Amino acid sequence: MNAEEVVEGLLSGNRRALARAITYVENEYPESKEIMKHIFPKTGKAHVVGLTGFPGVGKSTLVSKLTEEFRRRGKKVGIIAIDPGSPFTGGALLGDRLRLDGMDSRKALWTDPGIFFRSMSSRGRAGGLAAKTGDVVRLLDAFGFDVILVETVGAGQSEVDIIEVADTSVVVMMPETGDEIQVNKAGILEIGDIYVVNKADLGGAEKVERWLKYMLSLDEESVQMLSQMTHADEAKVASGEFFERRKGWSPPVIKTVADRGEGIKELADAIEEHFEYMKKSGLIEKRRRERVKRELFEIVMNDVIKLVKEKTNYRDLIMKLLKGETDPYTAAEQIVEEVIHNAGKG
Amino acid sequence: MNAEEVVEGLLSGNRRALARAITYVENEYPESKEIMKHIFPKTGKAHVVGLTGFPGVGKSTLVSKLTEEFRRRGKKVGIIAIDPGSPFTGGALLGDRLRLDGMDSRKALWTDPGIFFRSMSSRGRAGGLAAKTGDVVRLLDAFGFDVILVETVGAGQSEVDIIEVADTSVVVMMPETGDEIQVNKAGILEIGDIYVVNKADLGGAEKVERWLKYMLSLDEESVQMLSQMTHADEAKVASGEFFERRKGWSPPVIKTVADRGEGIKELADAIEEHFEYMKKSGLIEKRRRERVKRELFEIVMNDVIKLVKEKTNYRDLIMKLLKGETDPYTAAEQIVEEVIHNAGKG
Repeated sequence: MNAEEVVEGLLSGNRRALARAITYVENEYPESKEIMKHIFPKTGKAHVVGLTGFPGVGKSTLVSKLTEEFRRRGKKVGIIAIDPGSPFTGGALLGDRLRLDGMDSRKALWTDPGIFFRSMSSRGRAGGLAAKTGDVVRLLDAFGFDVILVETVGAGQSEVDIIEVADTSVVVMMPETGDEIQVNKAGILEIGDIYVVNKADLGGAEKVERWLKYMLSLDEESVQMLSQMTHADEAKVASGEFFERRKGWSPPVIKTVADRGEGIKELADAIEEHFEYMKKSGLIEKRRRERVKRELFEIVMNDVIKLVKEKTNYRDLIMKLLKGETDPYTAAEQIVEEVIHNAGKG
Repeated sequence: MNAEEVVEGLLSGNRRALARAITYVENEYPESKEIMKHIFPKTGKAHVVGLTGFPGVGKSTLVSKLTEEFRRRGKKVGIIAIDPGSPFTGGALLGDRLRLDGMDSRKALWTDPGIFFRSMSSRGRAGGLAAKTGDVVRLLDAFGFDVILVETVGAGQSEVDIIEVADTSVVVMMPETGDEIQVNKAGILEIGDIYVVNKADLGGAEKVERWLKYMLSLDEESVQMLSQMTHADEAKVASGEFFERRKGWSPPVIKTVADRGEGIKELADAIEEHFEYMKKSGLIEKRRRERVKRELFEIVMNDVIKLVKEKTNYRDLIMKLLKGETDPYTAAEQIVEEVIHNAGKG
C-alpha cells in the first residue's frame, strides 16, 4: 500500500490500513511523513489517557478491565502498550499480556471491532518516543477511537515523555512495604491527574493511599519549603510547572482490584470527569499546545541530525575529540556553523 | 568563583571547586561551557562503571560496598547517583541512602578524601541527561578519581542513555518470582557487561542466575530467530549492536549479598577484568567514540534549540498546528529552513 491508499483506507475504517500506517510510522518508512501530513487535520477528537507505573502493579489487567468498561459505555477504545523491552522480547510481553488478561479480554482484543490493540517498542528508535507515540495516537484518533489508552512502564525518563502525549495521566501503584521504593516513587507525584492503588486487596493499600493524599495535598509553597530544607545550600526550587498542569484539579486516589473488576467503574468515572474538567477549564488546549510543541521540536531535531550527517565533517571532529584536540562544546559550535553555512548554500 | 578559578581549583585537588563545577554543569550556568572546554583535555584516565537496576534491588548498598573494596585496592572513587525523583525529593533519596548504607559507609562518604559522592536529578533538564552526566563524569575524571561509579534506576529509556557513559555496565537484579517482571527485564540483557544477582540469600537466586546465563549464551542467530518467531509478519530483527558492543566478552553473572559484603570482591575483580579486556581489545576506544558522538549530538541539539527559539517564528507555527492549518512535519521543515536562512544572515 502506498501512502495515499493507507490514508484512504484508514479514514474509511479499514483496520488493515490502520495497522499498516502504524508500522510505517513506527519504523520510519518514507511514507510515514506523507501519511501524517494528511491525517493530522482529522485529529483532536479522541480522549488520550496515559497509564504509567512500575512493572508488576497490574497495568495490563487494569487496561483490559477499563477497556471493557468503556466499551459498555459505548466508546471505541484504542490501546497502545509501550514495551520497554528489547526488539526480540516484544512478542513475549504481548504473550504475557494475553495470558494475564484471561480468556474474555483476549477474545475481545481480537474480535471486537471497537477495540484495537498495539504494542510498540520504546527501544532503538532514533526519532524520539514522544513524537512517534504522538503519531500513533493520531492515527488511532483519525481512525475514530473515542478513548486511546497509552500504557507505559514508569521509572525514569520515559514516563515523563509519555505523559506529554496524554490528556489524562493515570499513575498506577500497589501496596508495598519497602521504603526505598516509596521514596523513588515521589517523582510520579508530579505527573498524575488520577492515582490508582491497584491490588488493594493486599495489605497496606491504605498506607499508600494516605501517603499519596498527604503528598498531593501540599501546596506549592510547602513543596518549595521542602525543597529548600532537603537541599541545603544548593536548593533547587520546584518549578511549579506541575501545579500549572493540573490547576484547580485535585487528583483523586482510587483503590482497585483490577482482576476482580473492583473500582473500575469509579476509575472510568474519574477519567471521564477529568476530561470534562480539562475541556471546561481550557487546560486541554494548554496541554495540547505543550504537546505539539514538544513533538515539533523532536521532528526538527530529527531533521537537523540528518543535516549534520549529510552536510558536516562531524566524523573528523569526533576523531579530534578522541585525541583531545578539541572539546565537545567547541566542536558543537563548529558543527552548527557548518550546517547553517552548507545547508544554506545547497 | 569564576570559570578560571573553578578549573584551577579542580585541577589542584580542591573538592569545593569540584562541587562548584558540578553545580555549574548541572544547572547549565554560563560558566559551565568554559569549564568543560578547559577540563576536557585532562580526561580519559578514569574507569567509568555504570550500575543500573530496578528500585529495591540494593544498588546503593552495592555501590557503598564496592567503594570500600576499591578503596582497599588503593583507588580513589567518585560516585554519581542519578536520582529519577523530583527536585524536591532529591534530598530524601540521599537521606535514605545514608540510612541504608549504615554508619561506616556514611562516615567514609564524607570524611575519606579518596571518595566523592554526588547525586543528580534526571528530571527537568533541558540539556539531555547523557551529555550532562558525561560532563560530571569528566569533572571527576579530571580531578583524579580512578574509578567513577554511576548509579541509575533502570526501567525504560534512561538506563540506555546512562550505559553510554560507562566503560563497564553492571546490571543489578535480585531473586523474585513474578513472570511479568522477568519478561520486562529482558531488555537489560543487551546492556550489561556484568550481571549481579544481589540479595542472593533470598530464595530463587539460582533461578534468575540460570535464566540470565541461558539468555546470555544465545548467539546472534538464535536471537534473530527468536525475534522472528515472536513477531510474525512484522518481525523486527535484533540489530546486533549489542553483540558488537561486547564482542568476545562473555558477561559473568555474580551472586552477591551486598549488605553482608558477600560477592563484592568477585564483583570488583570482574569490573577490573572487564576494563583490562576493553583496553586490550581496543573496544574501549570504540565505546568512547560512540559516547563522545552521542554527547556531541546532544550539545548540537541544544545549540539548535536555542537558535530555533531566537531565530524562528515557531510560536506562530504552533498556533497553526493547533488550528489544524499545518502538520508537524511541514512545520518542522519550515523551522529548519528559517534557522538556516536567518542564522546564516546574522
